[in-house]
Order: sequence, then structure tokens, then C-alpha cells
Amino acid sequence: MTKTELFENIKRKQSFLCVGLDTDVEKIPSHLRNNDDPVFDFNRAIIDATADFCVACKPNLAFYECGGIKGWASLEKTVDYIKTYYPDLFIIADAKRGDIGNTSSMYAHTFFKEMGVHSITVAPYMGEDSVTPFLTYKGKWAILLALTSNKGSEDFQMTKDEQGEPMYEKVLRVSKNWGNDENMMYVVGATHGKMFESIRRIVPDHFLLVPGVGAQGGSLEEVCQYGMNDKCGLIVNSSRAIIYADATEQFAEKAGEAAALVQKEMAFFLSKKGII
Amino acid sequence: MTKTELFENIKRKQSFLCVGLDTDVEKIPSHLRNNDDPVFDFNRAIIDATADFCVACKPNLAFYECGGIKGWASLEKTVDYIKTYYPDLFIIADAKRGDIGNTSSMYAHTFFKEMGVHSITVAPYMGEDSVTPFLTYKGKWAILLALTSNKGSEDFQMTKDEQGEPMYEKVLRVSKNWGNDENMMYVVGATHGKMFESIRRIVPDHFLLVPGVGAQGGSLEEVCQYGMNDKCGLIVNSSRAIIYADATEQFAEKAGEAAALVQKEMAFFLSKKGII
Repeated sequence: MTKTELFENIKRKQSFLCVGLDTDVEKIPSHLRNNDDPVFDFNRAIIDATADFCVACKPNLAFYECGGIKGWASLEKTVDYIKTYYPDLFIIADAKRGDIGNTSSMYAHTFFKEMGVHSITVAPYMGEDSVTPFLTYKGKWAILLALTSNKGSEDFQMTKDEQGEPMYEKVLRVSKNWGNDENMMYVVGATHGKMFESIRRIVPDHFLLVPGVGAQGGSLEEVCQYGMNDKCGLIVNSSRAIIYADATEQFAEKAGEAAALVQKEMAFFLSKKGII
Repeated sequence: MTKTELFENIKRKQSFLCVGLDTDVEKIPSHLRNNDDPVFDFNRAIIDATADFCVACKPNLAFYECGGIKGWASLEKTVDYIKTYYPDLFIIADAKRGDIGNTSSMYAHTFFKEMGVHSITVAPYMGEDSVTPFLTYKGKWAILLALTSNKGSEDFQMTKDEQGEPMYEKVLRVSKNWGNDENMMYVVGATHGKMFESIRRIVPDHFLLVPGVGAQGGSLEEVCQYGMNDKCGLIVNSSRAIIYADATEQFAEKAGEAAALVQKEMAFFLSKKGII
């Protein structure tokens, strides 16, 4: 999916919501648990209920790998389902991969060619040759971790170098030359509201994938105030607050309602910015 | 596996070799390719041929994920085979994982409980809460990336902070307090020979997993000179130089010979240090 296509979807749906498919078999409604593939059945219902209100969805690989072969099958079925019925949804494999060149090339092939997702999250620690293999597929994206939403983001990401530049800013500044705003995005946690200002000075045009609104405590208003650009430039993820909005047989309907609420807020901010 | 058990295995086998199972279906001997599970058949033959000469083996997850469900099955069969027939081999899932706490917990459960490997490689960028979930399983290890063997290690790992400390040293210094030398190891690339001296000042007692000898150009002699401690403290990996030593029907025999050669060199360095 190109940047233009993504932006068109955002305007049409009046939303920049990403639904995080952190599907934990322990947390899904009990009436699904004896199905053949409860994880896929849950995902399908969630996707059907939320697709009108979001532009992206993000399966978190940990929640599929934990099921071994069966989990991997649930993931592949979920991705196939989205590609078949909701081809306008931008699919993010939240996998935090990144390794030496020949290994990153294997991961890129797996996720982009075999599985066919649009993007994958990548950790920057191993540097350029661990990231560039993800940048050679047309319409596919590497989403590099810059400033994450968790407490541990303070440990190394905020370390200032000899020129006073924090590591996450260096990651942005250096890595933006490896690709461009048509094949790279960055993860910036919603929990760092005001830092979006300095981030936008370094990468004014890149899309940012923003976790941490909802269960982790970030503010959508602050993210929009400091992070939105004139092409929106934001994909804001919500996982638990949407997919586990309810644990009864009405779980999908309630997830849809939760997503619709976020979409309405997002429409307000898009309108305020003059985008819609 | 405890640190003491690992050290006993090193002394008994006179080796600190890890065989990297970067098994690429495109590179394995052609006579195996029509088998039901060529990757597993290749791995089994390599393990049988090299197990006398190594103390660890390291499947690289990228090479299994690329096969989807089938690849994941090959990985599980490989791990089961090692656990059944070679319980003294330390199994490293080379997965470079690391995510927010609840996600890292899922990965830890998957690799340590479901799959049953002894250790997993972890990327440090997301900080403490992304690493500590891997430290709570008895006899299991997180192997944190410190200074990797690739060119991209220069991009961020060597960045000096305001006190002049390079990032990889900060990672070592800070993270060693999250666990101890019984549940953490570090990845240090063989391509950085002399830097092992300063690394040993920070983590004198931890085991280091050392990739980059062989195809990537690192020197075993330098690694031993600067990195070995009195409990050996090194697991040196070789992947391509051993498993692809030969592409004929004699591939396993030749892999065994390649591993035996490395083992002899290692015995020399262990003896020089007075360990055997």
C-alpha cells in the first residue's frame, strides 16, 4: 500500500485507528474457546465489527507464536482473511525483528512475500544492514522503533550522546537516509506526548505508528496536537481497550462500538487540522 | 541448564562451539529436497555429525519462519530431537525478540515453556521491562545483544554518551543488574576482537555468545585472548562454515569434520588457559 493510498483511506474513513490484534486465547470470550480455531474466529469477528472504523490492524506476533504451529496457522488465516475481505486495511506485523543482513532478508521475504502483510516493526539496535533488507519491496514498509511507549524506553532510547542528542533522535536522523517516507515509518509511543514536537522536526513527513493510547495511558489529544502533519502522518494503535471491550457473546459488537468512539474522536482531530 | 552444567560440558567435550542451524532450504544438498521435511532431515544429520564437537546449537528463527507452518514444525521437531537425543546440548533460539512487558512474557513462555529451549537472544533497545520477563525461568537464559558482528553495529551501538561511554557498554553495565551471570549472557561479535578487553572489565563472569567467526571474518584466537575467563565464558558460534561445508551426500560427514577441526582449536585455547 502506498502512502497516498493510506492517506486516501484515512480521509474516506475519517480515522487513523489501528486495531491491535493481541489475541490471547486466555482472554477471549469463553463461548469461543472450544472452536477449532478460537483465535481466528475471534479475530474475524473483531475485524468484521471494526473495519469500518479503522485503517490498519496489527497482529502482535508473540500472541500467535505462543500457539506454535496452530498459532502460526491462526495468524496466516487472519492475514488472508483481511487481504480477501478488507484489502484497504493496512496490515502491520508487529514482530520487532532485525538481524544481520542475510537474516533480515529472510524475515522480509517471509512477511512481505509469503505472508503478504504491508509492514513489519523492526528494532534499530543492529543498524543499517539490519533494516535495509526491509526497504526493497514496493508498497511495503519497515516501521522502525524510535521511542517506545514502555517504561524501559528511558533506559537506552533517551541516552544523550556527546552532542546532547538522545538516542531515539539519532535513530530517526540517521535511519531516515536509509529509505524515505514511502517505505519507512517510526514507532513513537503516545506516552511521550510533547516529544512529538522534536520528532516532527526530524521527520516531518513520515508516518508514525503510535501505541500506548488506552491501556498504557497516552493521550490522543496530545499526540494529535504535537504529532499530526498535513497528511495526518499518524496511525494510532489501540489493542486491549477495543478487542477486550467485552467478554460476552456481544464482544464483537462492543468492540465495534469502542472502535467507533475512537473514530469519532479522530474525525474531530482530522477536521480541526483541516484534513477532512 | 545451569552455568555449572554448561561449564562441565565445555570441559568434558573440550569445546565451546555452537553450531548455528541457519538451515536454508535453497542451500541444503539437493538429494534431501524432495523429502517430507528436508529442513529437519538436514538438521538431524548435522546434529548427529557435530554433537560430539559442540556444546550448543542455535537455530536462527528467520530460517524457520520463512516456511510458515511447515517451517515452524521443522523447528519444533529439531528442538525435540536435540532434547531427546542430546540433552547436554545448550539450545539457543536466535530470535532477537524484545517488546513491552506483557508481550515479552508471551515470548518467554513460548520459547522456554512450550518449545523448551534453554535460551533466547533478546534486543535491548526497549529496556528493562522488555528483558526481565525472560529472566524468571529457572535454568533459562536471556542472551542480550551488546555488540553485534555486523557493520551496522557502528551505527548506534558505538555511539558515545555524554560521559564518553559507548552504548554497548551502557547496555552491559545497566542490564547486568537486571539479572545475573546465571540467567543472562551477552552477544558480542567476534569481529570486534580487542573490544573484548573492555567488555570483560564490565562483565567479567558472564558467558558471551560470539558470532562472526568464519564467514564473517572474526578471529577465534583474538576472541580467546581477550574474552576467555577462567570458566571459559565463551560460546563461539559457527553457522555456514560448518553446516554448508559440503553440498553432496557426504554433507553431514564433512560438517562433522569441520566441527572437529574447530573443536581441536578450541581445546588448544582451553588448555592454554589451564581450563582442561
